Amino acid sequence: MFEQLGLIGCGLMGGSFALACKRAGLVKRVVGYSKSPSTTERARQLGVIDQEASSALMAVSGSDLVLVAVPVAATEATLKAVKGLITPTTLLMDVGSTKRDVVDAARRALREQMGSFVPCHPITGKEVAGVEHADANLYIDQKIVLTPVEKTLTAQLKRATALWAALGGKVVTMSPDAHDAAFAAVSHLPHLIAFAAINAIIRQPQGNEYLDLAGPGFRDFSRIAASDPQVWHDIFATNKAQLLEQSQFFRENLLAMERMIENSDRAGLMQQIAQASATRAAWHMGADKPGR
Amino acid sequence: MFEQLGLIGCGLMGGSFALACKRAGLVKRVVGYSKSPSTTERARQLGVIDQEASSALMAVSGSDLVLVAVPVAATEATLKAVKGLITPTTLLMDVGSTKRDVVDAARRALREQMGSFVPCHPITGKEVAGVEHADANLYIDQKIVLTPVEKTLTAQLKRATALWAALGGKVVTMSPDAHDAAFAAVSHLPHLIAFAAINAIIRQPQGNEYLDLAGPGFRDFSRIAASDPQVWHDIFATNKAQLLEQSQFFRENLLAMERMIENSDRAGLMQQIAQASATRAAWHMGADKPGR
Repeated sequence: MFEQLGLIGCGLMGGSFALACKRAGLVKRVVGYSKSPSTTERARQLGVIDQEASSALMAVSGSDLVLVAVPVAATEATLKAVKGLITPTTLLMDVGSTKRDVVDAARRALREQMGSFVPCHPITGKEVAGVEHADANLYIDQKIVLTPVEKTLTAQLKRATALWAALGGKVVTMSPDAHDAAFAAVSHLPHLIAFAAINAIIRQPQGNEYLDLAGPGFRDFSRIAASDPQVWHDIFATNKAQLLEQSQFFRENLLAMERMIENSDRAGLMQQIAQASATRAAWHMGADKPGR
Repeated sequence: MFEQLGLIGCGLMGGSFALACKRAGLVKRVVGYSKSPSTTERARQLGVIDQEASSALMAVSGSDLVLVAVPVAATEATLKAVKGLITPTTLLMDVGSTKRDVVDAARRALREQMGSFVPCHPITGKEVAGVEHADANLYIDQKIVLTPVEKTLTAQLKRATALWAALGGKVVTMSPDAHDAAFAAVSHLPHLIAFAAINAIIRQPQGNEYLDLAGPGFRDFSRIAASDPQVWHDIFATNKAQLLEQSQFFRENLLAMERMIENSDRAGLMQQIAQASATRAAWHMGADKPGR
């Protein structure tokens, strides 16, 4: 399907993509670049990439498929650096967790080559980072959200859709803003809440003793609070408006429940809890609605 | 160790206690009572209890060990019903998730027999309720919090400690108020937050579509929102003061992080996230401090 994958960022997401493409026979050769030369070397030693590139531009040279798998904040500089070698036949994708910001950065960086760019967000990951944990199975049965814009070439969107599907992903298409609102609600806000909940506990005099008593419910609830600080700082900063809107809405719902507890409003509180409980009990990860 | 266990409430917690006691050879006979006769019958059929009692009082008759494993809101009425057969040699325990409320109810119900009562909260459970899921291993390696008061007989506290230890539990002793503050922070508030977070999503026009996109982070974060509404309504109502204090403190921490996001306070936000992330990464469930 593709002659050469130019991989920029040989971490967990990029490395897994390379392994999955190779296993599926979708690329003949992978040329990789990472900011840290030792990461690039390690990726080659592990067989994740076939050849090390000395720059992002060199990784794109001769590649008909390019995946940018760098922190969201580095997307614009990366796209600017490689723009000169992007043509209308190059399929260029990213894997960033926010999309409005990425699309805006891509518009500024790519200009007339914007049509080759298909913004992607694979809904997957691991607790651990780094090319050592790259996994050819990472994308199987996982949702892959594509957020094309008006300038996106239909042909490239089709190629991207077919490629992710061939890797086992379930492709969903939506606008960058709809994507960012959805993930502010179901991912970014839960992370923000989990960070704030941990901090609220440890700032109390007995906080550490409280933590010693926490059980499995707390373990699962707070697991995402152990996530990488830099990654989450950047996500919060790039998806600021949507995140703040979701957080305010959440606080209003929390306050309403507090008032019911305070006022011993049994019926109201039961209704709130029952609604949440029934919703969560019926929810299954990756649930598909008919006709979507 | 004991002649007869009188089990009041043959659900998951009570049934598991009976099975564990029998397997450890700590009781010769188990007489059980549940509000629903079909539950009591099922418990006998499953071998969780040896004999069905027609009332809570009948379950206590002839028992030197009594476990009250009913919803917290039913504790006072249950203790009043059995008080006449409690003697200074009866070890009487509960398994309620809140303790100030239970201790106050016990004082009112038991009066001069208060010394026989050792308030307990085993930090364990399952997603599923009912005697069908009773499990003799439920208490192994789990924290068991005992919250004795001044009137508690030292001899009964010692017997309770030895009993739970013999079932594999790790016994911790603290005051009822310290218990309630700790669990407001690490259990009750996380549940309240999870309920409010689900409701905040589904009250948005696109809420159900957002939920379809949620991944493993959301799955774990929100798992406790599927908990039993009645149980959690009662816990929130009985631990009102401590829960509202914890919730307010959490909201203040959340708002502080929102302000940093709004003001693009990079250093401040990084510091908040890094502190939470390092704390959660270092945390292990049931961590014991030396000397406790």
